[in-house]
Amino acid sequence: MTHPRNLAIGMFDSGVGGLTVLRQICKRLPNEMIVYFGDTARVPYGDKSNQEILRYSIENAKYLMSYHKIKVLVNACNTSASCSRIELKQLCPIPVVDVIEAGVESIVKTTRSQRIAVLGTRATIRSGIYEKEIIKLLPQATVISIACPLFVLLVEEQFINHQATKLIVEEYLAPLKNQNIDALLLACTHYPLLRDIIQEELGSGVTIVDSSSSCADMVADLLSKKDLKTPLLSLRERHQFFVSDNPERFAVTAKNFLDIHTEVHVQIKSPD
Amino acid sequence: MTHPRNLAIGMFDSGVGGLTVLRQICKRLPNEMIVYFGDTARVPYGDKSNQEILRYSIENAKYLMSYHKIKVLVNACNTSASCSRIELKQLCPIPVVDVIEAGVESIVKTTRSQRIAVLGTRATIRSGIYEKEIIKLLPQATVISIACPLFVLLVEEQFINHQATKLIVEEYLAPLKNQNIDALLLACTHYPLLRDIIQEELGSGVTIVDSSSSCADMVADLLSKKDLKTPLLSLRERHQFFVSDNPERFAVTAKNFLDIHTEVHVQIKSPD
Repeated sequence: MTHPRNLAIGMFDSGVGGLTVLRQICKRLPNEMIVYFGDTARVPYGDKSNQEILRYSIENAKYLMSYHKIKVLVNACNTSASCSRIELKQLCPIPVVDVIEAGVESIVKTTRSQRIAVLGTRATIRSGIYEKEIIKLLPQATVISIACPLFVLLVEEQFINHQATKLIVEEYLAPLKNQNIDALLLACTHYPLLRDIIQEELGSGVTIVDSSSSCADMVADLLSKKDLKTPLLSLRERHQFFVSDNPERFAVTAKNFLDIHTEVHVQIKSPD
Repeated sequence: MTHPRNLAIGMFDSGVGGLTVLRQICKRLPNEMIVYFGDTARVPYGDKSNQEILRYSIENAKYLMSYHKIKVLVNACNTSASCSRIELKQLCPIPVVDVIEAGVESIVKTTRSQRIAVLGTRATIRSGIYEKEIIKLLPQATVISIACPLFVLLVEEQFINHQATKLIVEEYLAPLKNQNIDALLLACTHYPLLRDIIQEELGSGVTIVDSSSSCADMVADLLSKKDLKTPLLSLRERHQFFVSDNPERFAVTAKNFLDIHTEVHVQIKSPD
């Protein structure tokens, strides 16, 4: 029987966004094997209702636990985690890490003035989850939450350094003018790719925290504490990518997200 | 038994976009009752694979025919029609009209130079259906097809007259420079809301045809020819809207699309 240390890290996202988390995990834990599931048939989750998102999230977790041998489950999708984090922790016999828990922990450590901004998809912001979790830890904090639905597509369409994107960033961030925030959380895994343009708009007085990096930190901590880090050097060659639809497009976008030049082999998820 | 003339027009779209078709049908056929289904749980179709889109489309058609009394089926979704038009005509015992058939007929009548541009979602453009259908009728035509995935969200986010949208239009239409096209087809039902900004970029030498208007023309023609126009004046008060998810958001967007100030009552589609 395989020792739990040698099992994979299982992670899911609604699509490609979680690859920014995968990239950060690879940096911190270069030996680990990762099984990634992108629910590309149902992407984007951002505009779905909470019940639908919960149902999708449970299906994704069950798929990874049933069809793959994993030692930890990473929910890399903010929108999913905003609707399913408690349920997934109850459901799963293995540890679950999600981008929300990680992002909140990190932004709370970062802020000095306790005036914080959170950017996310419509569903994440509507859920109020970040605000609620931040206030639990910092009851005096002011949290300004802004939905930025265009950001995901601008990233996927490679408008990253385009003047149009600058104008859209300016428009979405307008409510932050004169609010004296000192920390801003990118609460969507696509947004790190717009980090520079957002920093430019905010100026240097605001520290940006991205939930992808925070989540990778948390996974690394957890594996250390639970003695779950693999001692094998060769596993990382065996990352596996599964999607529910359109593997060709995923492979192309994945190369941009992961900033690699090799082929990304993507398989279609086996039937439910 | 109700006379077929007094039955409703059934129509579906992946979400709200088809409301531009509904609006045009209402203008031409003010007495008709319309049952509209928006598949908001699975929107957008534009980035799904062809098989998935075909499956959704058949489900939508079956839903409208099974749960409502309709005399004609309007497939108001370009992306859907690009993958399902032949299958739906085979499947349905009632006449089927779709935006592709209508748009092609109209652009072919409009062009003089036979140099045509088509704008649509990624799936519509990838399908090559417009090009194929136009060439069937005008074998010498040159068709330049451009996928514009950001347009739908820009409309839904109400960036319609925003400078960022102008820049994105400019970027997407760049391949048309010096191509001497004289007619451009808006092959997505959201795009008519960007018509002015697109016309400005093209200049006055290019005639824009939108598939929503063309589709409404075709429905009006069909009802006349088949003697299916309702003689009743009161039916139009009874338009019905069904969606597969998120009725509140649909109702808000619908008011923008239909340019009305009254409430839009939206019901959740009954279970499959």
